[in-house]
Amino acid sequence: MTAPERTHRGRARIAGPGEGIGLHELALATRNHGMPLEALRYDVTPPGLHYVLTHYDIPAVDPDNWSLEVGGAVGRPLRLDLDDLRRRPAVTARVLLECAGNGRARLEPRPAGQPWLLEAVGTAEWTGTPLAPLLEEAGLSPGAVDVAFTGADHGVERGVEQDYARGLPLAEALRPDVLLVWAMNGAPLPPQHGAPLRLLVPGWYGMAHVKWLTRVEVLDHLFDGFQNTVAYRMRTGGADDGAPVTRIAPRALLAPPGWPDSMTRERFLRPGPVTLTGRAWSGRAPVTGVEVSTDGGATWTVADLAPTDPAHPHAWRAWRCTWDARRGDHELVVRATDAEGAQPTEQRWNRQGMANDLVQRVPVTVLG
Amino acid sequence: MTAPERTHRGRARIAGPGEGIGLHELALATRNHGMPLEALRYDVTPPGLHYVLTHYDIPAVDPDNWSLEVGGAVGRPLRLDLDDLRRRPAVTARVLLECAGNGRARLEPRPAGQPWLLEAVGTAEWTGTPLAPLLEEAGLSPGAVDVAFTGADHGVERGVEQDYARGLPLAEALRPDVLLVWAMNGAPLPPQHGAPLRLLVPGWYGMAHVKWLTRVEVLDHLFDGFQNTVAYRMRTGGADDGAPVTRIAPRALLAPPGWPDSMTRERFLRPGPVTLTGRAWSGRAPVTGVEVSTDGGATWTVADLAPTDPAHPHAWRAWRCTWDARRGDHELVVRATDAEGAQPTEQRWNRQGMANDLVQRVPVTVLG
Repeated sequence: MTAPERTHRGRARIAGPGEGIGLHELALATRNHGMPLEALRYDVTPPGLHYVLTHYDIPAVDPDNWSLEVGGAVGRPLRLDLDDLRRRPAVTARVLLECAGNGRARLEPRPAGQPWLLEAVGTAEWTGTPLAPLLEEAGLSPGAVDVAFTGADHGVERGVEQDYARGLPLAEALRPDVLLVWAMNGAPLPPQHGAPLRLLVPGWYGMAHVKWLTRVEVLDHLFDGFQNTVAYRMRTGGADDGAPVTRIAPRALLAPPGWPDSMTRERFLRPGPVTLTGRAWSGRAPVTGVEVSTDGGATWTVADLAPTDPAHPHAWRAWRCTWDARRGDHELVVRATDAEGAQPTEQRWNRQGMANDLVQRVPVTVLG
Repeated sequence: MTAPERTHRGRARIAGPGEGIGLHELALATRNHGMPLEALRYDVTPPGLHYVLTHYDIPAVDPDNWSLEVGGAVGRPLRLDLDDLRRRPAVTARVLLECAGNGRARLEPRPAGQPWLLEAVGTAEWTGTPLAPLLEEAGLSPGAVDVAFTGADHGVERGVEQDYARGLPLAEALRPDVLLVWAMNGAPLPPQHGAPLRLLVPGWYGMAHVKWLTRVEVLDHLFDGFQNTVAYRMRTGGADDGAPVTRIAPRALLAPPGWPDSMTRERFLRPGPVTLTGRAWSGRAPVTGVEVSTDGGATWTVADLAPTDPAHPHAWRAWRCTWDARRGDHELVVRATDAEGAQPTEQRWNRQGMANDLVQRVPVTVLG
């Protein structure tokens, strides 16, 4: 833990060859939390198992003294409290979320940051009211192009003190499935998921779903805040701006079969037929197939993929595949394909470790 | 991440000087999760913020096909399903839990294992039925000395395949506040906290509160299973047996004031009066005081400590202290004292990193 861990102002640090996780990254890993992959068994992730990523601290927001401002390039600015919002039409949607940094810690070299392996996912039932009618009531100015969403969470990021804020293109903000959410899995939104109100932008990585929402500001220019222009970019060199991180790339995950070693998380199982199960999703296009390899990617078998549920187009989909497990060491690999292509078996690197889509590999030992 | 990470059979590995966290320990850190310390603000930890430590996988237990066996050295073995248990007298208790490995990752040298910093704590409202009347109905044999509790979670630990099982001295098992628990914070026990039934042993570290309980076995001899004889020992050398880990040592924690840097978790605040707040507890004796230092431990101020709530003797207690923050860098330190002594300011090391009680240190920068 002796390597220099400070990030440089405005630029994410890249770990050196063989460098382990230091105390700073560990402090993130113990605060934030992933979904243990055996929880892929649940259609809806139970409370407390859904992944959580908090940039700063979880703010203490008093719901009785809280209100949401809708302003900026609008004709009639609005201020609404929770009761105002709850009186509006309510929708419940089952939506998968994935952190844009999922998979970062397996990249080589490793970008410093929240060191996710593959567990920064979850699917919940979110209840709220559509955003678009509110924006229409506020009266969008003809020149409106972006909508900025600001949360109550406050901190410093690469030298810039800020409230967390993200811009979203107006066309996305006006989608009928974009919600202002106050409940999760039928219960009030927990503090770590954005109580009392968060944004939900189905299909986009987690950074778009702003938590602890305090202000919605319509802009007649492109949002130029930190979280869009500095963070959440697909940079490969040190100087390029990189494309913005937006929709979730396709991914399939396997619930590791058998039982683990408590320390190494190596997996063991008995020989014979095994049903491999997991989930698959994509935020950019419907998943068209899931394939499984039990020999490290040399050969692939098409898995049975549950059809898209018309009631839940943004939920993950279950898949399964039978494997006749024989004694010895095997590497299980799984990959999803959507209309734009399949997950790669070799990493695509970028310096913030964003929108990673590398296949999952699960070594297993079948006992004799 | 190139250092050898395999644990040796029967012995925990110690990290080398300056060695960062490797992929195996990171896989534990991303699965298990701590309570972000700002959540010290809640009397009862909200769902999903309570710490979770799972040795193996979270098992899939079907509550409709589940039952609890009570057997061993008893006259009348029992088998009870959830309805049987829920028909018995129910008690709700507000109880603090802390993982026995809390603080492990700050030890030097660092024992390999779940790399907790200081966040492996939480206080919940647990609802269940007292264990003692059940044991009495089963008819304890005169020679009974220990009670073994076995969970449905299965894995390998230092080469030993096992269902998680812990022995508890009979005198502890017969305490009226030891419960068989099916609800947490008024809701059914979530999967990761032991659904459908777990044990609660107020005052003991987390390893005693066996989750996914399937069997209670009264023993006429001392329990000799792995989790009591190999794991959870206060070993200092390589060969000594070490004392067993039992009750929670005193600890005070501070909710870090101000706002954080998102990556380094360094803290910043503005000058002027600041109310420092946190919680304190001990599982071995009532906490008698909490002291705060704002100069790295050179001088100490007595904090205001909330009285013990007679309704919740095993809950954590709130403390507070006003600090006139002046521009510059400061190190905040907090320590609890109980009837047996105060937290040490220098580490007490043991090779599994168990029952750590080192004071918390929070560096802060007061801006000009």
